[in-house]
Amino acid sequence: MHYALKQGDLIISDLPNFVEICEEGPREGFQIEPSPISTEKKINLIDALSNTGLKNIQVCSFVNPRLVPGWADAEAVVQGFTAKKGINYTGLYFNSRGLERALEYKDKLKLSGSISLAASEGFTKKNLNRSHPENLAAMKKHVSAHLDKKISVSRIGVMAAFGCNYQGDIAPKIVVDTLKEGMSIAEETGAKITIFSLADTMGWAAPYKIESVLGEVRNEWPEIKISLHLHDTRGLAVANAYVALKMGISHFDSTVGGLGGCPFAGQPKAAGNICTEELVLLCEELGIETGVNLDELIEVGRLAEDIVGHQLPGELVHAGSLDAFRRNINL
Amino acid sequence: MHYALKQGDLIISDLPNFVEICEEGPREGFQIEPSPISTEKKINLIDALSNTGLKNIQVCSFVNPRLVPGWADAEAVVQGFTAKKGINYTGLYFNSRGLERALEYKDKLKLSGSISLAASEGFTKKNLNRSHPENLAAMKKHVSAHLDKKISVSRIGVMAAFGCNYQGDIAPKIVVDTLKEGMSIAEETGAKITIFSLADTMGWAAPYKIESVLGEVRNEWPEIKISLHLHDTRGLAVANAYVALKMGISHFDSTVGGLGGCPFAGQPKAAGNICTEELVLLCEELGIETGVNLDELIEVGRLAEDIVGHQLPGELVHAGSLDAFRRNINL
Repeated sequence: MHYALKQGDLIISDLPNFVEICEEGPREGFQIEPSPISTEKKINLIDALSNTGLKNIQVCSFVNPRLVPGWADAEAVVQGFTAKKGINYTGLYFNSRGLERALEYKDKLKLSGSISLAASEGFTKKNLNRSHPENLAAMKKHVSAHLDKKISVSRIGVMAAFGCNYQGDIAPKIVVDTLKEGMSIAEETGAKITIFSLADTMGWAAPYKIESVLGEVRNEWPEIKISLHLHDTRGLAVANAYVALKMGISHFDSTVGGLGGCPFAGQPKAAGNICTEELVLLCEELGIETGVNLDELIEVGRLAEDIVGHQLPGELVHAGSLDAFRRNINL
Repeated sequence: MHYALKQGDLIISDLPNFVEICEEGPREGFQIEPSPISTEKKINLIDALSNTGLKNIQVCSFVNPRLVPGWADAEAVVQGFTAKKGINYTGLYFNSRGLERALEYKDKLKLSGSISLAASEGFTKKNLNRSHPENLAAMKKHVSAHLDKKISVSRIGVMAAFGCNYQGDIAPKIVVDTLKEGMSIAEETGAKITIFSLADTMGWAAPYKIESVLGEVRNEWPEIKISLHLHDTRGLAVANAYVALKMGISHFDSTVGGLGGCPFAGQPKAAGNICTEELVLLCEELGIETGVNLDELIEVGRLAEDIVGHQLPGELVHAGSLDAFRRNINL
């Protein structure tokens, strides 16, 4: 914050002091690119991200290579990157085969289970190729498989929590009901849930919806943290993040350069996730710490553009940070 | 708004019911493109915009063609487009030569003078090639020239009102002081000011700055409307617009597809203005009317991409509107 507050100014704010970012650029980014990205380049990006101050990096997806060919080399990527102390590296998976593959790297990856549901049955079908009841049954088995291996399951994720290309608007009550189903699975299996992750998988969120959904979820479970996974499909992601910050939300997923997009949303040319650089800038300008060095992160955004070979949606790779200008002007 | 409010819900909101958009895509867009755009294509874009429901379209810039070669054909463009009843078409200019050129088309263009200042002397020098005192003197002559021709001057514009690549952060007090200088010119010349236009010319604004600057300006002149001219240089424009809407601001400039950028900001590859489609979507999802048909506007965004021959920053040309999905899903 660069405007001096006057002494005696009363500040009432729910803004968090610190925002914890989970960088998903490698995982989200390389699942959607039309041309293959070499294992070496994926590793380069992860290693570069490790030097920006980010503390959570999702490095790969252990999914069926037939459905997501961009992640056929998940194992090679995990073997290849250099783990830096103090950073949580994670992989994504939705079934027991994925868990088995991830377990091979339990010394390098932070393993932690998630109950992955969607607020839209249409999207569950497209993304996981299961009906909603089938997915509930699968997730129950999934949680038990984790607990059997002494891996905790502390998270319920709800995809399409703000709307869906296949089902339209999603009412907040549906999100709450979906979370209740997740909580039932947790109770039956003995998992202790501490965080909900709500995903705007197809870019349907807008400020009012963010307030409604987060408000209703928090009313029901005031003690559980909420994390947001926003997509910038229609350009509103930063505004949505701002509204969430104002409500005190302090956990966000994002991708460097705005890499990514959902291969099952049916819109290959649409923008990806909220861009990490823009999220960090927003936080910085609101006086919120992220632990990330924005100028170094912007360099990684440029590397990401080089790797995919086309312009990415993030704007800061072209414009630079405000602090870089501030430093130059003050010299 | 697609979530039903319950009867008896108390709604306290400063959100406006209607937002008036000034579309500046033709003017801002074609001043920055590296390759020349034909007069015919400029006219095509203006004519297409006229069919979207937009009521204010800035069609050209009467500037020195040596400094802004992209607008050497301003006269030909004004002659060529088809004026539609009920739409205000305007041209931009900063000096008496520009005014003379605009006066030739006073039957087709809505002429209305503006006192154009910048909150940063560094930017005034770059953009207008004048010192700040020189610009104040020039603007006084400029206003008198308008009033002599019976053309009203009702607007003070302040460029770089939220920060400047050449001067860094701009404190709200500087914006207020700049407006006071403009008001002095108005008083001396007899111009009656009804609107202030605050421009984030180089993308330095962030939510807190929007609140500070707008708050201080409104405290000083509660009776004068404020219009925002936002650039998306660092990805925060939509969040900034949202904050302004929450403060009741109902006048915005924007560009279709996110065309544009400032040729004197020193960042040729940076993103342009806030994208009209994204601004309209934001308004729609907040229940605010704009009079614009978003699906038709998205088609014009696609035309704009064809015309410039490269991807523009606006996201909706790829993703489509939410209403288009809602209609298809309901069929």
